[in-house]
Amino acid sequence: MKTRVERRLAAILAADVAGYNRLMGGDEEGTLAALKGYRRELIDPKIAEHRGRIVKTTGDGALVEFASAVDAVRCGMEIQRAMAERNADIPEDRRIEFRLGINVGDIIIDEGDIYGDGVNIAARIEALASPGAICLSDNAYQQIKGKLALDVTEMGEQQLKNIVQPVRT
Amino acid sequence: MKTRVERRLAAILAADVAGYNRLMGGDEEGTLAALKGYRRELIDPKIAEHRGRIVKTTGDGALVEFASAVDAVRCGMEIQRAMAERNADIPEDRRIEFRLGINVGDIIIDEGDIYGDGVNIAARIEALASPGAICLSDNAYQQIKGKLALDVTEMGEQQLKNIVQPVRT
Repeated sequence: MKTRVERRLAAILAADVAGYNRLMGGDEEGTLAALKGYRRELIDPKIAEHRGRIVKTTGDGALVEFASAVDAVRCGMEIQRAMAERNADIPEDRRIEFRLGINVGDIIIDEGDIYGDGVNIAARIEALASPGAICLSDNAYQQIKGKLALDVTEMGEQQLKNIVQPVRT
Repeated sequence: MKTRVERRLAAILAADVAGYNRLMGGDEEGTLAALKGYRRELIDPKIAEHRGRIVKTTGDGALVEFASAVDAVRCGMEIQRAMAERNADIPEDRRIEFRLGINVGDIIIDEGDIYGDGVNIAARIEALASPGAICLSDNAYQQIKGKLALDVTEMGEQQLKNIVQPVRT
């Protein structure tokens, strides 16, 4: 029997820190400590609460897989809302703000890592998100509309087709 | 902690027999025996091979859940191809032909059963499929295009939006 690749439908959340190089240039140790604190106190617990799985982390980025698009978007919204509250008391040039991108794709799973268009698109739409906001692919938006209360701005055909971006909460 | 509904992204395949009432009117016991044989020898093994889960069966219908849209469409194509081969030697008025509908949705799982728009849409597009063919929702098509070799006919906005229908193989 030939080996068949394992596939599954998943919501993929890609995240990074807006202006990471600038923040690190200004205060390397402070930025790392703040990021670590956010992760421990806010982000990792939120991901666990919404049954997400952290596939990998890079310096300022992360790739998270969820079984449900509704769970992924809910998780992203709660993280962005909590970050906005924390940032309200911090000078603008020292704020850590995340950009999040969420896509739904039929991805390939191999030894715990994930591959495919579905993953690449999540990373590409994340780069389009404003700091503090979430950028959804049309595939993700189709799976959550009517199921979550969102303010959404259509971004139209912006290199990628059919991107919608919920406005900052 | 409040109970949260369990959701997951899934490919839902809905199936029924075209002209079931006519077939049953002509030969009740023969039709049932033939259906049972197809299920045992062809359909159930194909579903298992592609890691599908039969959620429920009705008289002539079935609802099957797959983790991957690619697996679901591959399974549907293999079943339709095998049925076409079997039917080639059977008089037209006695052929059992399936209509299949496949949708991708963020569905709700409760005690093994599945609920939500994603399930309803699969059933509605199945009714649009020609006998021996598969009707895909746009959500399903987006997840398989470029991943499978298909002949696809766009059906356009036909009550449901964005339906595509692979032609009979």
